[in-house]
Amino acid sequence: MNVVFWGKEFLRLKESLEKALSGHQVIIADPADGAGALASAEILVVRPVTVDEKLLSGAPSLRLVQQWGAGAEGIDLEACSGRGVYACNVPSIGTGNAEGVAEIAFLHMLLLAKRFFRAQEKLREGKVYTPPGVALWGKKACIIGLGNVGRSIAARMKAFGMNVVGINRTSPSECSLWGIDSYVPLDRIEEGVKGARFIVVSLALGPGTEGIIGERVFRAMERDAFFINVARGPVVDRQALEKALDDGLIAGAGLDVLWEEPHSPDDPLLNNPKVVVTPHIGGVNDASFAGVLGFIAGNVDLVAGGKPPLSCLNEKEMERGHP
Amino acid sequence: MNVVFWGKEFLRLKESLEKALSGHQVIIADPADGAGALASAEILVVRPVTVDEKLLSGAPSLRLVQQWGAGAEGIDLEACSGRGVYACNVPSIGTGNAEGVAEIAFLHMLLLAKRFFRAQEKLREGKVYTPPGVALWGKKACIIGLGNVGRSIAARMKAFGMNVVGINRTSPSECSLWGIDSYVPLDRIEEGVKGARFIVVSLALGPGTEGIIGERVFRAMERDAFFINVARGPVVDRQALEKALDDGLIAGAGLDVLWEEPHSPDDPLLNNPKVVVTPHIGGVNDASFAGVLGFIAGNVDLVAGGKPPLSCLNEKEMERGHP
Repeated sequence: MNVVFWGKEFLRLKESLEKALSGHQVIIADPADGAGALASAEILVVRPVTVDEKLLSGAPSLRLVQQWGAGAEGIDLEACSGRGVYACNVPSIGTGNAEGVAEIAFLHMLLLAKRFFRAQEKLREGKVYTPPGVALWGKKACIIGLGNVGRSIAARMKAFGMNVVGINRTSPSECSLWGIDSYVPLDRIEEGVKGARFIVVSLALGPGTEGIIGERVFRAMERDAFFINVARGPVVDRQALEKALDDGLIAGAGLDVLWEEPHSPDDPLLNNPKVVVTPHIGGVNDASFAGVLGFIAGNVDLVAGGKPPLSCLNEKEMERGHP
Repeated sequence: MNVVFWGKEFLRLKESLEKALSGHQVIIADPADGAGALASAEILVVRPVTVDEKLLSGAPSLRLVQQWGAGAEGIDLEACSGRGVYACNVPSIGTGNAEGVAEIAFLHMLLLAKRFFRAQEKLREGKVYTPPGVALWGKKACIIGLGNVGRSIAARMKAFGMNVVGINRTSPSECSLWGIDSYVPLDRIEEGVKGARFIVVSLALGPGTEGIIGERVFRAMERDAFFINVARGPVVDRQALEKALDDGLIAGAGLDVLWEEPHSPDDPLLNNPKVVVTPHIGGVNDASFAGVLGFIAGNVDLVAGGKPPLSCLNEKEMERGHP
């Protein structure tokens, strides 16, 4: 198979990709200049980017668009189905992906709660036992989005002695099944964030969730709340977040995702003293790399053997239209 | 009661101390210049400092030396008992102290595993999905010292999907009671650290543990291991740690404690790129502040009322010698 990895970021993984896909042709293409690679692509592996009719029309041999990771919101499923192209993601739990994102959520919670940057200043001044931080233990936390990532975060929060409110579109049959203490439906976010010292967003990006964390939600938060986004930038209304920080509606923010990726190094949020940013590294770890790559190699082999790939997002449409 | 808080660090807590101890006289004294305050002290509240015969001899009215926190290794219990002075600490669990120290251990583990400082560089270069980090999930961790802090860390590690080896002087009747997967006795540390990606020290400092983490222990560690100390600096042989870092015997270190407190701002470890240091803030949080202060206020009232204080470290000696 002719497997095209779409994005310069894949270049540093070249050796591992070729090893895992030995027997197939691995091409790493820069989207800015990748039309040639696309023309012969049978499998296209993507980070969170837009895969639409226009892109697909340049790839007549394509049989599978494979997301590198779980969040496949950039892939136009209808356009794929219309062309008989499978669209797949990688299940996040058990591959190190959801677990890694939960870990990054905790890194952000702890950086903010323990005032890490201030502590580094104090350290250089020769001061000890300062600055005083906030204990996670005993605090109320709110998780918005209870998919694999949200539930992974919930389990860890419980072990840290936190009281966990989960917000989700669909309700669990029992809170304990999702490891939360109480449940609030997605159309009542304001209610769920009330009283929470930590609010973590782990909600898939989609038509119903874009900008869902907006001004009204920030107004409902406590003034000492820390807001953490490990989902996708556009789930949050950027202007509303900036205003909430400026107006002191919340105490700080931790962001593993921004609104454009790659972001501008001049993004003012990078220099906002109330904000900690990491460069979307939640799912980027040794375990998830092995897990994601192994899963994708399996899908490439399945498609090469004429079989349907796993974790297919347009399975029914493909079954109907393309026997 | 005349309550002397021993250390300038208490100055910024003045208002809260006076509020919690209303009805008593609160004095905050600088040890460099505190002989006057000591002369009339009935209760002496200390951070981890040396309280020996010499200090006690300057405080003839003293009835209680009260540690601010759990680790009271600096208090000479025999000298206290000889003078009829109670020596007390604050139990660490349930007051936010052990829980807070466990949280700082996780902050260090995550900072090292996710290569936080490198991630900040990448961020400023406009790069995303890099640097790749290490997942805690699925890794072997070793906790040296299974008191309240060690067990608090173990519970959190299990929720993070880690395999936990616990090292302690006394063995648990059952590993599951302490939330660990396996147990290794303290005289076989080398065996316990083998294969561990994360090693956390939470061992009380005492005659038997000073410098216990020395060259042989570092040699037994994996070259990709992260070493974290949230106990007391002197539990670790400083030269052995520095050599282990220089020689690449371990991948990095996270230290919430140093060998002198306050430390020198010129300490070379503060600028070692393989090391993250925080200024002994493990137990310094809102929950533990309220918990510790409340406990101490209770002890002051007990002593004022002629009753023995709680969490007394020389209870038997005091009962024998001073009915």
